[in-house]
Amino acid sequence: MKARIGIVGGTGYTGSELIRLLADHPEATLAVVTSRGEAGRDLGDVFPHLAGRVQLRFEPPATDVLAGCDLVFFAAPNGVAMEQVPELLDSGTKVIDLAADFRLRSASIWSQWYGKPHACPEYLDVAVYGLPELYREEIRSARLVANPGCYPTAVTLGALPLLEQGCVADGAVIADAKSGVSGAGRTNRTDLLFAEANENFKAYNVFAHRHHPEITQTLEAAAGHAVDLVFVPHLLPMTRGILATLHMRLTGGDRDLQGCYERRYAAEPFVHVLPPGSHPETRHVSGTNQCRIALHEDAGRVVVISVIDNLVKGAAGQAVQNMNLMLGLRETAGLTGLPILP
Amino acid sequence: MKARIGIVGGTGYTGSELIRLLADHPEATLAVVTSRGEAGRDLGDVFPHLAGRVQLRFEPPATDVLAGCDLVFFAAPNGVAMEQVPELLDSGTKVIDLAADFRLRSASIWSQWYGKPHACPEYLDVAVYGLPELYREEIRSARLVANPGCYPTAVTLGALPLLEQGCVADGAVIADAKSGVSGAGRTNRTDLLFAEANENFKAYNVFAHRHHPEITQTLEAAAGHAVDLVFVPHLLPMTRGILATLHMRLTGGDRDLQGCYERRYAAEPFVHVLPPGSHPETRHVSGTNQCRIALHEDAGRVVVISVIDNLVKGAAGQAVQNMNLMLGLRETAGLTGLPILP
Amino acid sequence: MKARIGIVGGTGYTGSELIRLLADHPEATLAVVTSRGEAGRDLGDVFPHLAGRVQLRFEPPATDVLAGCDLVFFAAPNGVAMEQVPELLDSGTKVIDLAADFRLRSASIWSQWYGKPHACPEYLDVAVYGLPELYREEIRSARLVANPGCYPTAVTLGALPLLEQGCVADGAVIADAKSGVSGAGRTNRTDLLFAEANENFKAYNVFAHRHHPEITQTLEAAAGHAVDLVFVPHLLPMTRGILATLHMRLTGGDRDLQGCYERRYAAEPFVHVLPPGSHPETRHVSGTNQCRIALHEDAGRVVVISVIDNLVKGAAGQAVQNMNLMLGLRETAGLTGLPILP
Amino acid sequence: MKARIGIVGGTGYTGSELIRLLADHPEATLAVVTSRGEAGRDLGDVFPHLAGRVQLRFEPPATDVLAGCDLVFFAAPNGVAMEQVPELLDSGTKVIDLAADFRLRSASIWSQWYGKPHACPEYLDVAVYGLPELYREEIRSARLVANPGCYPTAVTLGALPLLEQGCVADGAVIADAKSGVSGAGRTNRTDLLFAEANENFKAYNVFAHRHHPEITQTLEAAAGHAVDLVFVPHLLPMTRGILATLHMRLTGGDRDLQGCYERRYAAEPFVHVLPPGSHPETRHVSGTNQCRIALHEDAGRVVVISVIDNLVKGAAGQAVQNMNLMLGLRETAGLTGLPILP
Repeated sequence: MKARIGIVGGTGYTGSELIRLLADHPEATLAVVTSRGEAGRDLGDVFPHLAGRVQLRFEPPATDVLAGCDLVFFAAPNGVAMEQVPELLDSGTKVIDLAADFRLRSASIWSQWYGKPHACPEYLDVAVYGLPELYREEIRSARLVANPGCYPTAVTLGALPLLEQGCVADGAVIADAKSGVSGAGRTNRTDLLFAEANENFKAYNVFAHRHHPEITQTLEAAAGHAVDLVFVPHLLPMTRGILATLHMRLTGGDRDLQGCYERRYAAEPFVHVLPPGSHPETRHVSGTNQCRIALHEDAGRVVVISVIDNLVKGAAGQAVQNMNLMLGLRETAGLTGLPILP
Repeated sequence: MKARIGIVGGTGYTGSELIRLLADHPEATLAVVTSRGEAGRDLGDVFPHLAGRVQLRFEPPATDVLAGCDLVFFAAPNGVAMEQVPELLDSGTKVIDLAADFRLRSASIWSQWYGKPHACPEYLDVAVYGLPELYREEIRSARLVANPGCYPTAVTLGALPLLEQGCVADGAVIADAKSGVSGAGRTNRTDLLFAEANENFKAYNVFAHRHHPEITQTLEAAAGHAVDLVFVPHLLPMTRGILATLHMRLTGGDRDLQGCYERRYAAEPFVHVLPPGSHPETRHVSGTNQCRIALHEDAGRVVVISVIDNLVKGAAGQAVQNMNLMLGLRETAGLTGLPILP
Repeated sequence: MKARIGIVGGTGYTGSELIRLLADHPEATLAVVTSRGEAGRDLGDVFPHLAGRVQLRFEPPATDVLAGCDLVFFAAPNGVAMEQVPELLDSGTKVIDLAADFRLRSASIWSQWYGKPHACPEYLDVAVYGLPELYREEIRSARLVANPGCYPTAVTLGALPLLEQGCVADGAVIADAKSGVSGAGRTNRTDLLFAEANENFKAYNVFAHRHHPEITQTLEAAAGHAVDLVFVPHLLPMTRGILATLHMRLTGGDRDLQGCYERRYAAEPFVHVLPPGSHPETRHVSGTNQCRIALHEDAGRVVVISVIDNLVKGAAGQAVQNMNLMLGLRETAGLTGLPILP
Repeated sequence: MKARIGIVGGTGYTGSELIRLLADHPEATLAVVTSRGEAGRDLGDVFPHLAGRVQLRFEPPATDVLAGCDLVFFAAPNGVAMEQVPELLDSGTKVIDLAADFRLRSASIWSQWYGKPHACPEYLDVAVYGLPELYREEIRSARLVANPGCYPTAVTLGALPLLEQGCVADGAVIADAKSGVSGAGRTNRTDLLFAEANENFKAYNVFAHRHHPEITQTLEAAAGHAVDLVFVPHLLPMTRGILATLHMRLTGGDRDLQGCYERRYAAEPFVHVLPPGSHPETRHVSGTNQCRIALHEDAGRVVVISVIDNLVKGAAGQAVQNMNLMLGLRETAGLTGLPILP
């Protein structure tokens, strides 16, 4: 029998991407999708491309309609999951939160960056950070998984092998990251309008993005020492895709970086280290759960380029990968589609 | 001394385009810009690209701050101008409304399409429809000009010569029109988000667009007979530009259509009839007040293609052209810039 | 055992789309892909997104390497297939040509539009026009299928029910069609450069597009009478998608057009008639083999809007649908993916 | 009398941008435009948007047709100017090369990066590097100016004040730069096709871009010490604009970086230092000769963001600025247009 899955907040981009992935999932079935604003409407009315394919109605976001699920995804804004998660876990339902409520280990750092007190700080230790390349075994047995942010996924996978090997001079990592507009969500903001974002490029939130403490926390855990992170996000005039360009300097000594990355990710189904000299492109992972990484080295300076689809490996796809692990399914189930080019 | 000009509603796309055109106008000076939401802020704070170039502060939209102007543009939503225009005209200030308040001659048709009673129906006859190619002399002496809509400008200029000559079989005009996203204004609507409008194309408001009665009214006045209009607007995944493809059938008899169009527009500074077989492109008029038209004829069927920049000849540029006429300035003053390609 | 499939010309957009669809096809396997220019290289070198997923090398385009296939797709330029098809058919291999070599029944009309004599005119009668909604049974038993053009698919599916019912006044159909840039193929032409096609819109080949005789031929066969077609193609600043806006006038009498379309396509797996008043969007079929159609009627004038993905239902997807029919597989096999939004 | 100006290579993007800027220049007139491929055709035939505005014919690229000019721009591929420049200079005509022939001081470094011997190495010392913010006085008296590359302009203006003040730790500058597609020129390359570049983002030529030695040469001259540059260019899915994100670490000591930049550029007409905390956007300089710079500092790490229009301040606009200086005209003549938004 297929696993019964619920989604809280099915009308945003991560929610609709979860619906797409679960609609074709061979071992899980989408049982409940909630929406505060669209409760009572058919999914196919709100998302015409699902008409005739997904026969469900948006439910109001009450805990009881979710309690019958084996696992519930929260694809809601920050601060929603932490209000419902304790009760759901108590009912035996597993939870993956795609927002930021359980990503940071420290309630005080969380409050500082998210601007309010945490509703259930005692669950910050219960939650496992859902990056399978780093915490696969913990995820398998987790009841509550904090799905990583999109930038943190791209940056962490790109920097991980070097930091684990202690090769980064001064622990200094510069992450110059660029994201498609869908990363900002399905939100009615002027700066996200087509006529504002088209034919334009800018950085935003320099030294002030909420993914900063999340990236630092994971990189420091992997490195075992302090990481001095400069993180600069930029907004690309395209819908999907993240490319992170990482700049680091090597500690002394000869090293086979290419081999280091290839060995680190050899068994990973969704991380692909490209041949030396490659330039990964966001379109080559678009719509897929892949992360592609390339290394460039010159006189002790390293440039690592890491690309993902922000809505798949950076959100819904990684969440399904975590679901597969938590429910004992094949890790790649439902995640094998090819990108659509051009 | 330069003419003193005011703008009501300077934060939308037609408003900011007026500011751009007036900032470089040789015979007019921008004296007042109002905004309900941004009153008190410098223009350069709201529009960083104007910082250091336009030294003005947004004023609250009261009539008295406008009364010292020679002419005031209303670049506000439909329904704003009709509340202020009578008082302004009484104070001796001329007015050009870029919204729809004074475009239709019939108050009842206006109410039917705009969903409320008209606030000053007695001014509908005072207003001149601001299409210089049709009403130049009336505009010169007008106190109140209703600036045409963007689609109506492109469609009317494309169909005018044929209808004036009585060449259109059954008076039947099909206007298959396509507009860039800026035509919908600087409005926080989900369907105007980059991630919704990018890499997408759709028709909207088929048989139900407010520009329908406006186009019909003008075409019928020009033709002197009823016009049977089918108007289908579409949304293009680009910021600026309108292309209208007009489909008509000719009444019998040999005709030199190309010559007919060339003669009709020979003296027009902003209408350019292209050589036979041409395919006008929106980028060739982008940022300019030009309309480019090409004719294709085959066995009695005619396809006329008309392109404009929706924010210039379709809004702010045509408004400045009208201002020039109303104030006795050179008609082309401030409107001679070349398009920026690519 | 899975059917063995070959592709001639695997480096263009229809070729790479065939590769994508066949890579996930449950009942067919991709055995041979040829390319004149890339022979000898791994597919994953030419298309990095296929690396690790499709383990094939481009072969030179000789007939003998293809002869072991059950079916061969020609995704090559016009004029290539007609040189190789007779020999391949003789060897017992079935053929689907995605180019135009076998779409027209008349060799002289073909020559007139394609500018050279046809190499095997005796096969024009052997070929079946591969529009399953019209010729499903003939396709099942065909050895040679001429896969329809992208515009003809969108236009024909949109106009078919009305013409079959004899409802179109004067047989007059205006097809105002708009296509994404990928429709022009992976060709190094200046007008297809990003900096030329971006933020631009234009018509092209008015009264002179090669799809004109193809559409007329099919519509007339369906209608049983002459069709007076005006076909105007336009180039959209986006990669994928076709939207055709059809303008027709009805012959007299009351008719249930919506019901007519719904009944006509009730059993079709890939044609979806939307509820009255709908506005189909290209993104809702992007990457899928779906055609979505909506009807708008007002006082005897009808506007039909039809959208497809030009590379799927307009090319490779329809070709796979035809392959499924010709090989006795499930018609929808390999064609059930959802669109990826946003 | 207006200065007589010639352009060699008027059909590329820098050439057509020069034409646009010179068409509206108050003190210079475009006398000759050459093109190998389009010789004999009217400019308005090749560039329809110039029809009726620029009355010139493309000439063949012979030196004698250029010799009557006061100044000639070379907007041709690398390697063209160096063949003609000596003869032109001898005839008394001043020259600005927008390609790379005279940008590097060392003929051997030039040969190494451009793959052939330099045709007139003795002119490398004659040429002045055309960055007015650094070499204004030398440009005024120059006969031959090497117009800077687009990336070098954005990067150099962003890093200059810090390097001049000796504030950059280890002379280490990381320039993570992103450019619109027009930067690659009007070249028929597959990777520049709309369907390849749209909805995609990638780095290219990491550690191998020809602008690397050019940037290093200028920064080292300004700094007076070695500069350790990491330069990573990326390709944005948009037509115009460069944004360079510069990462540096400060040498110790308290410093007023904002004041340092503001003082350095206070008198510069085309460099605008934004208030602290700003995020410059490429659209705010699109079509203009402006460079906008913002500084972000945190614990000794500095992020400088610099935006230009790659075809204006990064090419044709800066060339006109240099022309103005060389001919004794107002430096800002012809360069005061506002950006067109949205």
